[in-house]
Parts: sequence; structure tokens; C-alpha cells
Amino acid sequence: MATYDWASFTTDYGLADGFVAACHGVIGRTAHHVRIIDITHQVPPQDVRRGSVVLAQTVPFLPRAIHLAVVDPGVGTQRRGIIIQAPDGTLVGPDNGLLLSAAEALGGISRAFELTNPDYRLDSVSRTFHGRDIFAPAVAHLANGVPVSALGTEIDAGDLVRLPAPELRVERGRISAEVTTVDHFGNLTLAATASDVDRAVLPRVVNVHTGQRRFTATMGTTFADVSPDELVVLVDSSEHLAIAVNSRSAAERLSVTAGDIITVEAP
Amino acid sequence: MATYDWASFTTDYGLADGFVAACHGVIGRTAHHVRIIDITHQVPPQDVRRGSVVLAQTVPFLPRAIHLAVVDPGVGTQRRGIIIQAPDGTLVGPDNGLLLSAAEALGGISRAFELTNPDYRLDSVSRTFHGRDIFAPAVAHLANGVPVSALGTEIDAGDLVRLPAPELRVERGRISAEVTTVDHFGNLTLAATASDVDRAVLPRVVNVHTGQRRFTATMGTTFADVSPDELVVLVDSSEHLAIAVNSRSAAERLSVTAGDIITVEAP
Amino acid sequence: MATYDWASFTTDYGLADGFVAACHGVIGRTAHHVRIIDITHQVPPQDVRRGSVVLAQTVPFLPRAIHLAVVDPGVGTQRRGIIIQAPDGTLVGPDNGLLLSAAEALGGISRAFELTNPDYRLDSVSRTFHGRDIFAPAVAHLANGVPVSALGTEIDAGDLVRLPAPELRVERGRISAEVTTVDHFGNLTLAATASDVDRAVLPRVVNVHTGQRRFTATMGTTFADVSPDELVVLVDSSEHLAIAVNSRSAAERLSVTAGDIITVEAP
Repeated sequence: MATYDWASFTTDYGLADGFVAACHGVIGRTAHHVRIIDITHQVPPQDVRRGSVVLAQTVPFLPRAIHLAVVDPGVGTQRRGIIIQAPDGTLVGPDNGLLLSAAEALGGISRAFELTNPDYRLDSVSRTFHGRDIFAPAVAHLANGVPVSALGTEIDAGDLVRLPAPELRVERGRISAEVTTVDHFGNLTLAATASDVDRAVLPRVVNVHTGQRRFTATMGTTFADVSPDELVVLVDSSEHLAIAVNSRSAAERLSVTAGDIITVEAP
Repeated sequence: MATYDWASFTTDYGLADGFVAACHGVIGRTAHHVRIIDITHQVPPQDVRRGSVVLAQTVPFLPRAIHLAVVDPGVGTQRRGIIIQAPDGTLVGPDNGLLLSAAEALGGISRAFELTNPDYRLDSVSRTFHGRDIFAPAVAHLANGVPVSALGTEIDAGDLVRLPAPELRVERGRISAEVTTVDHFGNLTLAATASDVDRAVLPRVVNVHTGQRRFTATMGTTFADVSPDELVVLVDSSEHLAIAVNSRSAAERLSVTAGDIITVEAP
Repeated sequence: MATYDWASFTTDYGLADGFVAACHGVIGRTAHHVRIIDITHQVPPQDVRRGSVVLAQTVPFLPRAIHLAVVDPGVGTQRRGIIIQAPDGTLVGPDNGLLLSAAEALGGISRAFELTNPDYRLDSVSRTFHGRDIFAPAVAHLANGVPVSALGTEIDAGDLVRLPAPELRVERGRISAEVTTVDHFGNLTLAATASDVDRAVLPRVVNVHTGQRRFTATMGTTFADVSPDELVVLVDSSEHLAIAVNSRSAAERLSVTAGDIITVEAP
């Protein structure tokens, strides 16, 4: 069977405990050859949406890999553990919507499986740490070439749990969209894509409304297109509409956070 | 001599400086083949107890490895640098109690050595960064198969510095135990083990006392066994008694931290 | 051409987004064999000075490598992307002063090149993420043995952007120097080197002035040379003058931060 040389790993485990390392160890013990790229372990606890966005933004730039992602408020309940096969990679994690945007970014869902076979888990499975006890072993065995059909039962892709679509309204001269992520620099990525931006045909100077307040911004292509402390609206490196403040945090300046709705429009 | 393919690495160095990378580099220069799993570098500064607990919880899930751990308030003083051999791995670090719980988790202390041979250190040894200058080179040489007896002198395992045992009292219907760690999610791990919990025979609904306040909690097996914001008492993935709040931080809710004593008892 | 087995990676990207992983992925896809040591990704946003210091302190302890560093407030503007060759390694990043201290630590600048060849970039280059789209591909191709002259045009080392030298005045019995870094433990590293300290011939007990306040400190060689909470002045593991407080943060105790000037002098 096809094997994998690479895995990626995304969680809300943080870096202060041994959780991430335990999963690395479980994978390394069984699939010595696999190299793991940590995407992030600082998804805010149980923020499935945020995990989904970071994962989907990053996987297109990684080598062909098995992508392990665990943001899992339902661990130990009836929620399913799943494997999704896509043309450009395989995803492993909980069936709570976390994996689906990344599956799209990898070419769409080819087949989906529920992780049901206890032979491919640790001998003792806790009810609170399926990353270590169920998902990491699955990644290791898949990387070694165990067929996905041996690990579980095929399920209907249409039955997978999906996150609600983020808010998005595009018309000529106006985009109203949910903030899907705030990055480390305080830049705001919105649900609108580059093609939504093309469609809206925004002028060079725009108004940015946050619900509470209104700002003037310049359409640009990089942060330094405006003076320090000024707002720039651009298509960011994930090909989405973004709002930034040169040399400062737009999230602080606009007092917005992920999930808020922002409107960018002709004045 | 036996060689090692893997090392693990645990410190209080944080991730904002180059300290961790310098140690990775020193190991990689001498033992190119070694792969390093970072357990955590966010042990609170000089918190030997916390480092000890995270290390011991994690090593059973790693490949056979040399485990380098440095939480070292006494660096540069007379405290010894040591190597501990155990059936399931080797530990390297300061003689301040940090390594002993992990040695137990790896099958107990087989032999112990003091790192005394200057030939296996960097040419210039600082007095403030023995992780880089003494411990990392020791790991690299051990991984290359240099016999442990070449690196130092055998010492009596009974003379190793030990941390005081955490508080623990178990009786029928009542466990009183020290909080040994608070994890990233705010879950509290107590000094009592799964077998202590069996011995106590707690009922389904229990009282949790923190010294300051009393809470009602449900005995369960995973976080979602109770409604959001409610307390659940369970055996966690490290096989210890733990207190969690579904979807929230138990540490915040109970206002407790590592080192505090909590009593779980029949009402 | 010479190839590289190792790279290092230093940024202000933080660890909460997928930025670091995307760069790891881009390198891994093109240069499968390269192993990457992350120096830090927690340089404060756009703090070129801090990035420069951490990088220069760390590279001497790494294997021979291509050192990728990106702290890049001018991304997408006319600032150049550069490669610096030094006797003991190669550096890749923006031409804003970030790389020069590290080049000195690697033996000085041998040759410098501007990254101009679009064949060695990602197919689509964003204006906000040159780490992923330009610098990481350059690292990968260099590691594979593509000659540096194929990636760009040689430039005059004298034209490279330099950071202003940090403040430093040394006389007998007195050193006045800028704080260049505050580490994770709150220890303060100053711009003065070990040889500056030799030259100043400071007595065992010194005064430490911060501009606001004056403290008494002991010249020592490690933190525990003084009692807990007391100040010690020492030459640190980067061979620079440093001020520490045993078991506490000197930065908090003295209320100073990077960029402040501290005077250490005979009483």
C-alpha cells in the first residue's frame, strides 16, 4: 500500500504539558520513518473553527502527508473518530467539522472512514486522550501502509459533521464578512476570498465598519502600503480579504475578534 | 555499545530565546542521527516538581530514548550532573530530584553516574548553561555509543537528591491529595493513582473541598460526562485522579494551583 | 555544489498560526533531506534588533547550516531579500540588519547576493509572506546544491542595511551599556563583552544604575553565587555582561527592558 513519509499535527493541547510529545512518541515508536511538522498546538481550547481555518490554510504548502488534527471537546463521547482521504493527502481526527475545510484544500473528500478497529489503538485507551491512544496510532499505521479499510468502516461523506458556513455577503462596492482568524500580528482574515474581492470592485479608499465603529482604509497589497498606524485592506497570503494596520495590531485597533462581522464598502 | 536513535528534551528554558536550539544544535553536531522529541520547554522557571511530573507522565509513550531534562536552579554550584540508567531508557540532567519519577516510569533506577569527565563537554563550559555545555554533549556521546562509565563515575542511587513525596491520604470514601499539575485546559491532576481511587470506593456524587470552598461533583470517565460548567472527577490519561470542569478551567473555577491540597469525599 | 543537511529558522511569526509550518513544508517538499532547528518564533513582532541578537547568540552552537531568519516589517516593499555567505554557514532573509551579527558570529561576510531569480520562488508570490514564498524556497534550493549565483545577483556587502550599534562605554571601574536582550528568566544581557568586563576591572561589589534607581550587586559567575532575591553581575553563556537576580526576574526587579541603558560601576 502507499505509505507516507510526512505527517502534520494540529491541536489545542498547548505546549506546557507532555500531550504533544506523547503523540509524537506514539507515532515515532510505530512508524520510525515519519517526519512530523507541527502546524500549531495553540488553537484556543476547544475552538474547532479556529483549528479548521489554520489547518486548511497550511496544508497546501506541506509535503504530501497524513494530517492529524485534534480539537476535540467531545472526546470520549459518541462522536466518531474519522479518516478522510483526499487526492492530495489524508486527514485523521474527530468528526466535528475540524477536518473538512482542509479536505477541500486537498482536493475534496474522496472517501471517509470511521476509526473502529481496536487492533490499531494503544492497548489501553483512555477516555480523555484519544489523540495519543487512537488518532496517533492510526496515523502511524497508515504511514506504514496499513490500508485505511483495515482501520475502520467506510462511512458516507454526506454524514460528516460540518461547521456552519461563516457569514459572507458580497455585492458591488460592498463586502460583509465574518472574521475567521486573527493572526499573531493582529491581522484580520475575513471569510471573503480573492475572487469575492474581484467581484465587489472596491475603490481605492474604503470604509470599514465593525458594528461599533467606522474607519477609513486604503485598498493595498502589503502592510507598508500605508503609513504606520493606518489601516490597509488587502488580499492576504491565504488568498482571503484581510484588514491590517501597518506596524500594529488591527484586532486591537478595531476591537474585533474572530466571529465578528466586518463590512468593507465604498464610502 | 548500545546506541540511541531518539532523545527527549524537557526544560524551563521557554521558547523565546535560543537556549533550546543551542542544545539541539550541540546534540545534532555530534550525533547527527538522533531525533529529538521536545516534551516541553514551558516548565515554570525553576519548578523542579512540575518538570518531574510532566517528564514522568510522558516518557512511557516515547520510543526508547535518552531523556534530557534541565530545570536547574543550582546550575554552576556544587549540585551534581547525573546519568540514570533504567531498563527502558536513560536520563540525563541535574541531581535535584527532577529525573527520579521518570526513572520509576522507565522501570526503576538500574545504575547512576555523576558526569565528571571533561572530555565529553564543550571546550568552554559556562557556569550558567550546563544544558548546552555539559548535558547536551553527554546525550550526544551516549547516543553515539560512548559507554556511560566513560562519561563519569558510578554513584549510589540512594544518595540521589529526591523531592519530598506529595501529600496523599486515602481512606474508604475519602481521598485527600496534593494537586501535582494543572494542565493547559485547567484540569487538575492529583497525587492519587487509579488504584488509590479503587481503594477509596467513592460514590457517584462527591464533595470536593479546596480548603476555602466546597463543590459538588460527579464521578465520571470523561469531560462531557457532565454538563458544561459542571465538575467531573475522573481518572485521567496519566492514570491519576483528576478534577475537571466540562468546557472550562477547573483551576480557575476552584481557584487552586499546583501544590494545593484537595479533598474528594462522599457527601 | 556543496549541499546542506541542516537549516535553522528564526522569526517573529509566533506559534499560533500555520506560518512556521508552511515554511517548514515548503522546505521539506523541495529538500526532503534537510533537518530544521527552530531557534525561536517568538521574536516580538517586527523587533529586528531582538531577532538579530538571538540569532547571533545561537548559530555558533548549531551544525553547519543555512540560517533562515524573517523579522520583516518591510515585506512587500523595495527592501531586498538577501543571501549572505560566511565561512561557517549561509544566511537567508530580508536586508534590514537582521542577519549581520550572525554573519559576524559565523566568521564574517564572504559574499552577499540579492534574491532576484523568480525561478526559485513559489509559483505564486504573495506580497505579505515572503518567508514562505521566497525565502523558504531559496533555503531549499541552496540546500539541494543550487549555486547561490543562480538565485540572485552579487551585491556589495558594504551596502547591506545595518542596525545602529548598541550604546556602550567602557572605562576603568565603569561600564555603561545597552540591554540587548531580556531572556525568559528575566536575566539582562548587556552590549558589553567579556573582554570589556576584563578591561573595566570591576570590584567584587558594584553599583548598578538604571537611570531611575540604584542597586548594589555582587560580581559573580553564576546565579546562586548570591542569596535568593539578590543581584549578581556576571559574564553569561553568550560571553556578555549580564545582570541577574537569583531565583527571580532581574527585568522585573530593576524595571528595565531591552534598549535601556544600565551602568555598572565601582561604588
